[in-house]
Amino acid sequence: MGDSIKKLAIFGSTGSIGRQTLQVVRNLTGRFRVVGLAAGQNLELLSEQIAEFQPKYIYYQSKESSKFITHSGTFLPMEEIAGHPDVDIVVIATSGKAGLSATLAAVRAGKKVAIANKEPLVMAGEIITREAKKSGAQLLPIDSEHSAIWQCLNGESQPPKRILLTASGGPFRGFSQEQLNQVTPQQALKHPSWQMGKKVTIDSATLMNKGLEIMEARWLFNIPLAQIDVIIHHQSIIHSMVEFIDGSFKAQMSFPDMRLPIQYALTWPERVPNPELPKLDWAQIKSLTFEPPDYKMFPCLELAIKAAKTGGTAPTALCAADETAVDLFLQGAVNFTDIARIVAGVMTEHQNICDPALDDIMNIDRWARDKALKLFRQDKKC
Amino acid sequence: MGDSIKKLAIFGSTGSIGRQTLQVVRNLTGRFRVVGLAAGQNLELLSEQIAEFQPKYIYYQSKESSKFITHSGTFLPMEEIAGHPDVDIVVIATSGKAGLSATLAAVRAGKKVAIANKEPLVMAGEIITREAKKSGAQLLPIDSEHSAIWQCLNGESQPPKRILLTASGGPFRGFSQEQLNQVTPQQALKHPSWQMGKKVTIDSATLMNKGLEIMEARWLFNIPLAQIDVIIHHQSIIHSMVEFIDGSFKAQMSFPDMRLPIQYALTWPERVPNPELPKLDWAQIKSLTFEPPDYKMFPCLELAIKAAKTGGTAPTALCAADETAVDLFLQGAVNFTDIARIVAGVMTEHQNICDPALDDIMNIDRWARDKALKLFRQDKKC
Repeated sequence: MGDSIKKLAIFGSTGSIGRQTLQVVRNLTGRFRVVGLAAGQNLELLSEQIAEFQPKYIYYQSKESSKFITHSGTFLPMEEIAGHPDVDIVVIATSGKAGLSATLAAVRAGKKVAIANKEPLVMAGEIITREAKKSGAQLLPIDSEHSAIWQCLNGESQPPKRILLTASGGPFRGFSQEQLNQVTPQQALKHPSWQMGKKVTIDSATLMNKGLEIMEARWLFNIPLAQIDVIIHHQSIIHSMVEFIDGSFKAQMSFPDMRLPIQYALTWPERVPNPELPKLDWAQIKSLTFEPPDYKMFPCLELAIKAAKTGGTAPTALCAADETAVDLFLQGAVNFTDIARIVAGVMTEHQNICDPALDDIMNIDRWARDKALKLFRQDKKC
Repeated sequence: MGDSIKKLAIFGSTGSIGRQTLQVVRNLTGRFRVVGLAAGQNLELLSEQIAEFQPKYIYYQSKESSKFITHSGTFLPMEEIAGHPDVDIVVIATSGKAGLSATLAAVRAGKKVAIANKEPLVMAGEIITREAKKSGAQLLPIDSEHSAIWQCLNGESQPPKRILLTASGGPFRGFSQEQLNQVTPQQALKHPSWQMGKKVTIDSATLMNKGLEIMEARWLFNIPLAQIDVIIHHQSIIHSMVEFIDGSFKAQMSFPDMRLPIQYALTWPERVPNPELPKLDWAQIKSLTFEPPDYKMFPCLELAIKAAKTGGTAPTALCAADETAVDLFLQGAVNFTDIARIVAGVMTEHQNICDPALDDIMNIDRWARDKALKLFRQDKKC
C-alpha cells in the first residue's frame, strides 16, 4: 500500500483504456482517488462512472449535453483539469488527436502523464518532450509495447542499442491482396489477442499502429529511429524487447491484458499484486514465434516509417489522414486497402514544415483531414 | 572505459570458464589486470597464461610441479590470493567442490566474487551468504541462468514472485530408457548449445546441473525453493525468466556464449560492447519452444530438488556423490543411467546434519565420495 492516495484524472474514461483504468482503480482499493473524468460521446456510461467515483472535475464534449447528466462536480475543460493542483496523475486514454492539448497542458503543469493515446506524441513529440524537460513532467507509457520497453530499461544506466517492437501481425497476417480487399470492419475489429478501442484495432490490422508506436518509442525513450525495429510475434506474449550494447536482450512478457501496463504506470515504481488478472501459463505456451513484417501487404507500416524519417509535420499529416481513412472504413465507405491508399495520397501532397509550432501542427492536421476526404470523394464510385 | 583498472584473480584459469574469462580480459583492453592465476593440472596452458598476463600471484595444485613452470610471481595458496589486498574481483571458475575454500576466503575478505562454480554455493550456501553479509562481499553470478535472473532483477525494488530457470534439456532430451543406458561419454560431452567444462556438460545431460542451479539461485537471490521452477527451452536463447508480483515476466536473452555473462559480471554495473561475440539474429530465430522437464527419465533433477528441500548436508552429499559418479562415467566405468543410481544410493544412506559447520560439510563430502565408490564397486560386474 502506498504512502498516500494518488489522485487521478482520466481522459477518455468511457473508452476501452478508460474503462480498464477504472477497473484497475477498483481492484486497488485505497490507492487512488479519481478526481477528474472526461469523455466524448458516451454520456450514459460517463454518468454511471460519475455516480461511482464522484470526481470533483468533469468534462464532456458538448456542454449542451449537460441536461442528460447530473453531478455535484465542476465542469471544466480537459486542459484545466490536466493542470489542476488537485491532480497527481493524468491518464490520457483518449483516441486519435483528441488528447493532444490536454497532454500538453498536463506536461506543462509538470504532472505524471500516463499515455495510452499515441497520436499526441506522434504529432507533437518534440514539443511534448521539450516541455516535459522544462516542467519536470514524467511521461509514463501505457501502451503494452512501451510499457515493456520501460520495464526492460528499468535499472539500466546506459541507453539501449536497439528496441525491438513486437507486433501480433493483426487478424489478416498472411492474407492475399484479394482477401484484404474484401475485409469487413467486423472482421478487422476482431483482434487476435487484444481488447482495444476501434481506432487502434483497425490500426493494428493495417500495421499503422506499429508505425505510430515507432514514433511513440522514439520520443518516450529518446532513441534514434534507426535503432527501432519491428518483429511479428503472433502470440502477443513478448510485448517488446530491448537490446543492450553488450548483445544482451531483455524482454517483458505477460498475458495480453491492458490492465497490467495500466496498473504498472499507475503504481510505478512499485509493483502490486492483481489476482483478478489472467496470468501466463507456461504449461500452455508451447512456442513463441517470430517473423519479419510483410511491408508489401501492409504498406501503412512503411508509410509511417517514412513519415517518421521525414519528421516535421509529416507524422501529423499521416495521423490525420489515417484517422479519417479509418473512420471511412468503419462507416463502410471505403475498403480496408483504401486506408493505405488514402494515407499515401495525402502524404504525396503534404508540404512539410520543419520544426513546427503547435499551430502548424493543427493546420496540417486540418489540411490532411480535408485532403483525405477529398481523395475519398474523388474516387467514390456511383 | 572504467575509471580504474580492476584487478582480477582467476581460479581455474585453464578450464573452460577460466579460458573464456581471459578472452574477455583480452577483448576489453585496459579494463582489467590479471594479478592472480590458479589452475589444477594443465601446467602447459597455465605457463602460457602466466607468460601472457604476468600475474603477481600464482597457484597450481602440486608445488612439486614447479619444475615444469617458470614465473616471476609468488606462489600462494588460493585462499591467500583470494583475500589479498591487491585483488578486486575473484573469479571462481574451478570445478566441483575445488573452489569452496577459496570462495569462502574471498567472501570473508569482502571481495567481489564472480561465481561460475556452483558447488560451493550448493554445499555451503548458507555459510557463504552469511559471511558475505558480514563482510560486504558481493556475489556476482557467471552462470548464464543466474546472470539472466540478475539482469532481470536489475532496478526492481521488490523481490520476485518466481524464478523460471530455463534448461536446454541436454543432448538426450526425448531418449528412451534403453537409449540412455547406451549413451557414451563422447555423446554426453556434446552439448547442443553450450561450450562448457566436462563436469557441467555431463550434469547438463543428466539435468543434475539444473537441480544444482535451483540451489545456487536460492542462495544468490535469497528466494524460497518453492518459488523456483524449471522449464525446458531447447534453443538456449532465453537464459532464464523472472515473474513479478503483478504477473509481469522479464526474460534475458542472448546467443549462448559464456563470454557474455562472464563479461557482465566483470564490468557490472556497466555494460560494454563486444563486437567479437556472436549475436542473436532474429531473422534466424523462427520459434522459441517450452516444455516441462521429464523428471522420470532424468531422476537427477528430482534428487537435487529433494536434497535442496532437505537442506543441511544433503546438498553436499548430493554434490559429492554426483562428482564421483560423473567421474566414473567419464572413465567409462559406469553407464550414464548409473549416475542417478549412485547418487540415489548415497542419498538413501546419508544421515543429515542440520545447520552444518564447514567441518561437517567437509566430512559429509568425504563420506559421500567414499560411499559412491563403494556402491560402484559393490555393483561392479566381473
